[in-house]
Amino acid sequence: MSLLVVGSVALDTVHTPKGSLVEGLGGSATYFSVAASIFTPVKLVGVVGGDFPTEHIDVLRSRGIDIDGLHTAEGKTFRWSGRYGEDFGDPETLDTQLNVFAEFSPQLPEKYKKTPFLFLGNIHPQLQLQVLDQMQSLKFAAVDTMNFWIERERELLLAVFKRIDMAVINELEVRLLTGLRSPLAGAKKVQQMGPEILVVKRGAYGSMALIGDEIFLFPAYPTDDVTDPTGAGDSFAGGMVGYIASQNDVSPSTIKRGIAHGTVVGSFCVEGFSIQKLEKITKDDVEKRLDALRKMMEF
Amino acid sequence: MSLLVVGSVALDTVHTPKGSLVEGLGGSATYFSVAASIFTPVKLVGVVGGDFPTEHIDVLRSRGIDIDGLHTAEGKTFRWSGRYGEDFGDPETLDTQLNVFAEFSPQLPEKYKKTPFLFLGNIHPQLQLQVLDQMQSLKFAAVDTMNFWIERERELLLAVFKRIDMAVINELEVRLLTGLRSPLAGAKKVQQMGPEILVVKRGAYGSMALIGDEIFLFPAYPTDDVTDPTGAGDSFAGGMVGYIASQNDVSPSTIKRGIAHGTVVGSFCVEGFSIQKLEKITKDDVEKRLDALRKMMEF
Repeated sequence: MSLLVVGSVALDTVHTPKGSLVEGLGGSATYFSVAASIFTPVKLVGVVGGDFPTEHIDVLRSRGIDIDGLHTAEGKTFRWSGRYGEDFGDPETLDTQLNVFAEFSPQLPEKYKKTPFLFLGNIHPQLQLQVLDQMQSLKFAAVDTMNFWIERERELLLAVFKRIDMAVINELEVRLLTGLRSPLAGAKKVQQMGPEILVVKRGAYGSMALIGDEIFLFPAYPTDDVTDPTGAGDSFAGGMVGYIASQNDVSPSTIKRGIAHGTVVGSFCVEGFSIQKLEKITKDDVEKRLDALRKMMEF
Repeated sequence: MSLLVVGSVALDTVHTPKGSLVEGLGGSATYFSVAASIFTPVKLVGVVGGDFPTEHIDVLRSRGIDIDGLHTAEGKTFRWSGRYGEDFGDPETLDTQLNVFAEFSPQLPEKYKKTPFLFLGNIHPQLQLQVLDQMQSLKFAAVDTMNFWIERERELLLAVFKRIDMAVINELEVRLLTGLRSPLAGAKKVQQMGPEILVVKRGAYGSMALIGDEIFLFPAYPTDDVTDPTGAGDSFAGGMVGYIASQNDVSPSTIKRGIAHGTVVGSFCVEGFSIQKLEKITKDDVEKRLDALRKMMEF
C-alpha cells in the first residue's frame, strides 16, 4: 500500500572524518522516502526553493517517488551544514538557513488524501495536525519529533500523539517528554500519551519498541564503514514504515519485521554521504544483510 | 566443571536514588562468584582484613563457594564508597581505601591449581600473570581489566591478553586499547592482541561479542527496577563464565548461551543493593527471565 511522508527536503553540507559533501540532497522527507521506496510506493509532501537542482528531482523520480506534493516556492531551499567528530556522535551544527521551509504549510494534493499509511516527519506539531486533518482514510500514522517541539510546543505535540499509532523518537526525547530516567518506565509513560506503538531509537545500539503490551529489542547492524550518519534515523523510519505499508498489515509481528528491515536500511544509509549509498540499495540487499544480522543474534 | 576467580572482596558503601547501603558485601570477585555459583562450583582467591564480618563469610559459604583461597591479612578490608546520580550512570567515587588489597599477592591453594576454568578479575596485570603461572591444567581463561591498567601497565596487560581465551571489557576500554573510535574495528583489533573471544560490555544496551570470526549481538534485559548498578559487569561475567564452565564446553554456541545467561544474571544484580537480590536467584529464575528476553527478540 502507498505511504505518504511529510517533512523537510534540504541541501546539506556535511563534514565527517571520511570527507565532506557540499549541498548534497538531504532532509528528513528525502531520507525517509528514498528508504521507504525500497519496499512500497511513496508520495512526498515538502517544499524547496527555485534553486533546488533538477538532478535531485531526478534522483527522487528515479526511485519512483511521487513528488507532485513537493512544492517549489519562491526563494531558496532549506540549507543545513554540520560537522561530525571522530566518534560520529551528534554533529556540531555550523549553519541553518530555513529559507522557504520557514513558511512551509503542507497542502496535500487531492489524490494524496486517501493514502492509507502516513509518516509525519519532524516538523511543527501544528503542521502535523494540519496534515492529519486532511487525511481521509488513514489506516496507520507514525510521527517523529525533536527536543525543540517537546520543550516549546508540548500541548500541540500531545494532541498529535493522541491521533497517531506510532511514535519514533530517541531516548533523550523520552526523558524530555516524561521526566523519567528509566528508559523502560519512560517509554511506558509515552505510550500512555497516545501512541500504541513506541519505537525508541538508540543510535548505534539499535532500538527498543513497545508494541501494545509487548517489548521488542533489536540491535543495530554493526558496521565499521560509517561515512556520514546524517539521515540514519529517518532512513530507519523509512525502511520500517515502508516495509509495514508494503505488507498492508499492522500486527505486532509485522511491526517487528518492519523494525528489523528499517534497522538494516539505516545501516546502509550511514555508509555513504547523503543518499549516495541508500539510493543504490535493493530489497535483496536488505534481505541479505538482515539474514546476516539475524545470524548475529542467534544463540 | 569448577571455576576459579581471583579478584577483590570489599566493603562497599553505596548511595543511589533508591537509598543507601553502608559497608555491604562488594568487590569484583564477590559479585562474580555469587553469580557463577548459580551454575557451577566456584573457588575464590582474594584477601580481606581481620574486620571482615563473618556474616559475609557465611553468605559466600551458603552459595557453596570454596573460600579456602580467601586470605585474611592483618589490617582492614578494602573499602569503596560511591554515589550514583538520577540516571544510574557511572558513579562518583567518594572514597577508596585499598587497605589489605594494596598488598594482595594471589597464592593459590594447591588444590586450586588444576581448576579448568579461570576468571581473572580486574587486578594488576602482574598479579594476573602470577595467577596464570600457577595454573596447571587450564582449559579456559577469561580476563577483565580497566582504564587504569590499560594506561599504566599496557605491556603487562598485553602479555596477559596473549595467554587468555576471552577478554571482557567495555567500549571505552576498547577505545583506550586501540585508539579506534569504531566499536567493531576496535573490537577486531583487540582480538588481534590475543583473546580469540572478546566480549564488549555496553551497559544498559547489552553486549557485542567477537567469537573467532563470528559476531554476536545481545541486548540487555530491560528493567525499570534499577536499585544499585554496582557489580553489574562482574555478575554478567560471573553468570557467563559460570554457565560456560557448567557446560564444560567452549564452542561458539555455548559461549553465546553463556553471554545470554550472564546478561540475565546481571539484570537481577542491579535490582538490589550489593548481592541482596543476586544471592536469592536460582537457575530457574534465570531460565524464566531468559525465556522472556528471548521473546522480546523474536521477529
